[in-house]
Amino acid sequence: MDLDRLKHETYYRSLGGGNERIGAGLMKKIGRRVDFENAYPPYFVLVYVLRGEGEYVDFKGTRHPLSVGDFFYRMPGFIHSNYIVPESGWTEYFLEFGRNIFTAFRELGVVREDRPVGRIGFSALICEEIAAQISLLRRAEEDELPGAFMKSLSIFSEFIKRADMKSTQSADAEMLRQACSYLGGDFKNKLNLEAFCLKNGWGYEKFRKIFQAKTGISPGKYRVRRRIDMACQMLKNPNYKINEIAVELGYSSPYEFSAQFKRFTGISPLSFRTGKNDK
Amino acid sequence: MDLDRLKHETYYRSLGGGNERIGAGLMKKIGRRVDFENAYPPYFVLVYVLRGEGEYVDFKGTRHPLSVGDFFYRMPGFIHSNYIVPESGWTEYFLEFGRNIFTAFRELGVVREDRPVGRIGFSALICEEIAAQISLLRRAEEDELPGAFMKSLSIFSEFIKRADMKSTQSADAEMLRQACSYLGGDFKNKLNLEAFCLKNGWGYEKFRKIFQAKTGISPGKYRVRRRIDMACQMLKNPNYKINEIAVELGYSSPYEFSAQFKRFTGISPLSFRTGKNDK
Repeated sequence: MDLDRLKHETYYRSLGGGNERIGAGLMKKIGRRVDFENAYPPYFVLVYVLRGEGEYVDFKGTRHPLSVGDFFYRMPGFIHSNYIVPESGWTEYFLEFGRNIFTAFRELGVVREDRPVGRIGFSALICEEIAAQISLLRRAEEDELPGAFMKSLSIFSEFIKRADMKSTQSADAEMLRQACSYLGGDFKNKLNLEAFCLKNGWGYEKFRKIFQAKTGISPGKYRVRRRIDMACQMLKNPNYKINEIAVELGYSSPYEFSAQFKRFTGISPLSFRTGKNDK
Repeated sequence: MDLDRLKHETYYRSLGGGNERIGAGLMKKIGRRVDFENAYPPYFVLVYVLRGEGEYVDFKGTRHPLSVGDFFYRMPGFIHSNYIVPESGWTEYFLEFGRNIFTAFRELGVVREDRPVGRIGFSALICEEIAAQISLLRRAEEDELPGAFMKSLSIFSEFIKRADMKSTQSADAEMLRQACSYLGGDFKNKLNLEAFCLKNGWGYEKFRKIFQAKTGISPGKYRVRRRIDMACQMLKNPNYKINEIAVELGYSSPYEFSAQFKRFTGISPLSFRTGKNDK
């Protein structure tokens, strides 16, 4: 790919009845030192570094060096700065989304404000896809925009997947896998997490810290969550009575089951099954 | 695909720090007439009909027949019912998402509450993808879940794209294309939409109605939106001064430009350019 031949080019298109828009572009930032400083952007952007050197300062003040193959987010509500080595020939692709997608992705843990920088390396394939997306936004008919939006999402998902694969090679990943598998099953019985850690030669307190840092929630809450996931699954099967599900999942009573299910999902088990509001 | 060999199977997995989860499954509903009645689901589901006959009643009371190759939504906040011909061997795949994705998709016009039923026909490829997704949810490690979520979205996007292609074959599509192209350009000059309609042999009032129904907004608002999109694009190019952009886009003054930009995006043109809050 001949970066010198690529030209500065950006397109934006609004979708839907609200004020949401998507954007995509290639930007060259030559001779500039400050790109964004203490910026607090109202939109959600993924920036992919094609060339150049720079630095990203996140909302906590942590500094992340940037070079070819890195990507970073500008996130609505999170102050950040990014600086460029002026003569490094900075060239970036970007994909822009509205606030709502950020809200959804953040809630789902797909995007985390404490991980604003990732690395996938330089990928000619992804570059081609973004280039195609830029030209799609330029020429898209109105009825092609929902498809174009989904295409932006699918490129975004490539970043998530590739960066994910990297993170799973980390030293703690295997421990985390085993712990999740232990915590995510055998709901009929009470678990002894301390004994489990001991057996595997892990310090309990250190384990808890790593678990929380990596998954964003505590081991105990994780277990409840998997139990609720299993409840959802069983509720979709009309062969199980709600009482039976409570027993199967180790609740001391259907009332305890109902209360916890409601606390986590906002609705009762029956309401989840029938789709009816039971206030 | 031998539907008789497929078994009832559903999986749910929570993601992130909130209480959002995704689900996928195959459901067989035999001998049942009422599936959901006046349901008001708290989640967002896409249901794809693999076999059987039925009917969907949307929040306005409009009835939509359902058969193989149709899909429909259960949308949070929108009451609906769906009925099944008991002996039709009803078999469905479903993909479930949380509320946040629905909010984002609805705001973007990707999902519209006034189009809760669509048709893509029976697709063995999509069936395979959903089947793979079901088994992925069953066995996914925690660090695979963001990727799994994106995969659900990409399957969802196939429905959107295929159903879109269908809608663009409608009789009004060509008129809409021409109108969008007319309204979406030449911002320096005032347009005469009535004359444009006349020239093309379209009744002005009828045109406005169809435009509003198909795009969800009026022709005038559509034009402003495209103008704001163009403003975003030009603001990303540091070679343009904000005054120049105002002139280029036909605003009578930079103040008028600023005011309209702010009304649509929530921020000033300068703030969009720099990412800084300028209150």
